[in-house]
Amino acid sequence: MSDTPLTEEQRETRQLVNEKHAQAKRELAAHGIDCWLTFSREGSDLLLPYVMGGEDLVGQAALMIFADGPSVAVVADYDASQFDGMFDSVLPYSKGWLDPFQQTLRERNPATIGINYSEVEHGVDGLTYGLYLRLIRALEPLGMVDRLVPAQPVTERVRCIKTPSEIERVRRACEITVRMFDDFTGMLKPGITEKDAWDIFGEQMRAYGLQPAWEAAYCPSVHSNRRAAGHTAPGAGLLEPGDAVHVDFGVKYEGYASDLQRVWYLRRPGETAPDPKVQHAFDAMKDGIALAFEIIKPGMRGYEIDEPVRALVASRGYTYTHSLGHQLGRLAHDGGVLMGPRNERYGDRTAAVIEPGMVFTLEPCVANIGLEENIVITETGCELLVPAATEIILV
Amino acid sequence: MSDTPLTEEQRETRQLVNEKHAQAKRELAAHGIDCWLTFSREGSDLLLPYVMGGEDLVGQAALMIFADGPSVAVVADYDASQFDGMFDSVLPYSKGWLDPFQQTLRERNPATIGINYSEVEHGVDGLTYGLYLRLIRALEPLGMVDRLVPAQPVTERVRCIKTPSEIERVRRACEITVRMFDDFTGMLKPGITEKDAWDIFGEQMRAYGLQPAWEAAYCPSVHSNRRAAGHTAPGAGLLEPGDAVHVDFGVKYEGYASDLQRVWYLRRPGETAPDPKVQHAFDAMKDGIALAFEIIKPGMRGYEIDEPVRALVASRGYTYTHSLGHQLGRLAHDGGVLMGPRNERYGDRTAAVIEPGMVFTLEPCVANIGLEENIVITETGCELLVPAATEIILV
Repeated sequence: MSDTPLTEEQRETRQLVNEKHAQAKRELAAHGIDCWLTFSREGSDLLLPYVMGGEDLVGQAALMIFADGPSVAVVADYDASQFDGMFDSVLPYSKGWLDPFQQTLRERNPATIGINYSEVEHGVDGLTYGLYLRLIRALEPLGMVDRLVPAQPVTERVRCIKTPSEIERVRRACEITVRMFDDFTGMLKPGITEKDAWDIFGEQMRAYGLQPAWEAAYCPSVHSNRRAAGHTAPGAGLLEPGDAVHVDFGVKYEGYASDLQRVWYLRRPGETAPDPKVQHAFDAMKDGIALAFEIIKPGMRGYEIDEPVRALVASRGYTYTHSLGHQLGRLAHDGGVLMGPRNERYGDRTAAVIEPGMVFTLEPCVANIGLEENIVITETGCELLVPAATEIILV
Repeated sequence: MSDTPLTEEQRETRQLVNEKHAQAKRELAAHGIDCWLTFSREGSDLLLPYVMGGEDLVGQAALMIFADGPSVAVVADYDASQFDGMFDSVLPYSKGWLDPFQQTLRERNPATIGINYSEVEHGVDGLTYGLYLRLIRALEPLGMVDRLVPAQPVTERVRCIKTPSEIERVRRACEITVRMFDDFTGMLKPGITEKDAWDIFGEQMRAYGLQPAWEAAYCPSVHSNRRAAGHTAPGAGLLEPGDAVHVDFGVKYEGYASDLQRVWYLRRPGETAPDPKVQHAFDAMKDGIALAFEIIKPGMRGYEIDEPVRALVASRGYTYTHSLGHQLGRLAHDGGVLMGPRNERYGDRTAAVIEPGMVFTLEPCVANIGLEENIVITETGCELLVPAATEIILV
C-alpha cells in the first residue's frame, strides 16, 4: 500500500477500470456467468488493461469479477499495490498462489467460471494454452473443471462497447493525429522520400511522447501512389510532382488508438488541382464514407453497411479488397465486429450487430491511396471523432 | 515483394532472424522434433520476434521451421512482404489459410509438431487456448492431432541462449542506460521529488527515441530508502539530505532490454561519505555480486549460485526476498532459468543449468536500496555487459 497521492493519470485509469468492472458485472449477470476469471502472469492476456488498468504483472495472478458480491485479486505481493481501489479484495501471496485461489473459489462457489478464450476473436483470446493446463490442475481437486465456460459473451462486450472514459481517449488520440497531419502538410515537398515522411511522424511522436498505434515500422505507412498501399515500410524513392502521397497513421493516447488516412497531392508546374485520376479515386472513397455515415444505425449488421458502400465504389470503377471498417480501441484492430463482406476470411464477424458505444474505422481504400475516418456508434446513428477530410491536400 | 533497399535496421533484423532459425533447426534435430509451428495472429505469442523479427501480424499465420528441409510461412497476403529473406517458402493467401496449411503438412508429413506452450515458462507459452482449439480443428481431418508436442525443449533454448546479434543488442541497451545514469547524476539534487527523478529518465528516453524495458509507470522505479523498494510508482515527497536514492531502470534497444540498478546518496551538510548504514548495505550487495561473478561457471544450477550469495548477504545482517538473478533478453524477465532459492514460488526454475549465451541480472537487493548488474555466461565463466558499479554515487 503506497502513501503517495495519485497522479491525474492514475486517477483516470482507476476511473476507467471502475467503469469496466461495473460493465463486466452487468454483462456477467445478463449472460448468466457467475465469475469472470482472468488467469494470467507476465506477458500475456490482452484483457488485462480492462481488469487492472495495465498489464504489469510478474507473478501468477487470478483476477476474479463476480456477478454478485465483491471482486477478488489473488496476486504476488510485489504486484499487489497497483490493485488498490480497483478490486474489492486484494489477497497478496508471498510463496504460493494456489491456496488463496482455491480458498476463494471454495468460499464463493461460482456455478460457472468464464475464462479468456475465443477461436475467432484475438482480442479476448488471452489465456495461453500453458496457463489453461495450469488452471485445470488447480480446479481438479475442487471438482470445478466442468464449471469452466468461455467468458467471451462478457469479454467481447467489455472490449467492444466503449465507456465514456474510453471514447474520450480515442477522441484525444484522433485529435493529436490530425494535428500531426497538419504539421506534416507544412513539411511535405517534392524531393523528400517516403522514408523522410515516415521520419517526420517519428519526430512528432517523440515530441509528444506518444507511441504509434501499431508496429512502428509501418506506422505511419507512407506510400506514393506509384506503388501499392499496405502495411509496408516506407521506400527510399523520391516523392515527385504528380505523386499522390498517402499516409495511414495513428497514435496511442493513454492506451487508446487512432487510425486515420489522408491523401496529399504534389502539384506539377502549373497544376492548380490534383491529377483527375487521383481526384476520381479520392471522391469514390469520400462518397463511400459519406454513404456509410448516412446509413449506419445501431442494430444493423456489418455486411449491411459494407455492401452498399462496396457497390457505390464499384460503380466508380474501383474495388477495395479488405473490409470497410474495423473496431478501434486499445488495439488498432479491436473487437469482433467488422463492416465487411461475407466470406471465409471474415467468418461470422461481418454478420455481427453494430451497437452504441462501438468505435469503428471507415476505410474504402482504392487506387493505391486511402482515406479513413473514425466514428463512434450512437443511439441513433454515428458521430465522427474528428471532422472528416473533404479534400485532397494540395502541396 | 518490395523493391525498396533494406535499411541497416532491417538488415540487422534479418541477420538476427536467420541466426535464430539456424539455432532452431539445430535444436529441433537435437530434440527429435520434426517441425516447430508458431500458429498465431494479431496480438499474440512472445516467440514471434524470433521467428519473424517482429510481431506485426494481422491475419492467421502458420510459421513452420522444419528439422529437415525448407521453412514455410503461410500468411495473409497483406502480411507477406516482411517474410522475404527469412523463410525459404512464403505462401500468401487471400481468402483462407486452411488449404495451404493443410497442404504443407500433407506434403511434409512431420512425425511430431511442436507448438508454443508451457505451464511454467511464460516466455514460450505464446499459443492461446482459442488458437489451440482452432489448430486442433485444422489437424483433425489430417489425422495429425496426436502429433502435437510441446515445442518447449526447442523454444526455451531459442529464448535462453542468445546469439551474437542478440548479446550485442543487450549490451547496447546497457551502455545507453549507464549513459542515462551518468546524466541523472548531474541533475539529482535535494529538493526534487521521486516523480521529478522519474521524469528525468522519461525525458532522456524521449530524447533517445527509446522505450522503457518494462511498464513505463515503474521504469524507472525510483525510491528514497525511507520507503520500501519495488515496482511502484514514484512518490511526491521530496528527496532530502541523508536519503539514499535507488533507481531500477532499463531501456529497450532494437527489441532487447537492459535492467540495471544504482544508488545515489544526498549528503547532509558536512558529510563527505554516505551514511554508514547505507554504505554497509551497499557493500553487502556489491560483495554478493562480486562473489556471484567469481563462482559462476556454465554447468552450475541456479540455486548453487544463489545459496552462497544469500549466505554472504545474511552474514552482513540482510535478506533479499526475491531471486538473485533472472534472465534478460527481449523481456526484462526472459527465459526459464533463475538464480534463486528452491521453493514453491520458483519451482524447477532455480534447478536449471546455466549455459553459455545466457544473459542474467545479478541483484541481491536489501535495506530499501538495490544494486543490479547484467552479465552474459561464457564458456569459462561470465562477463559483465557494462562495468559494475563500485561505489554509491555521492551528490
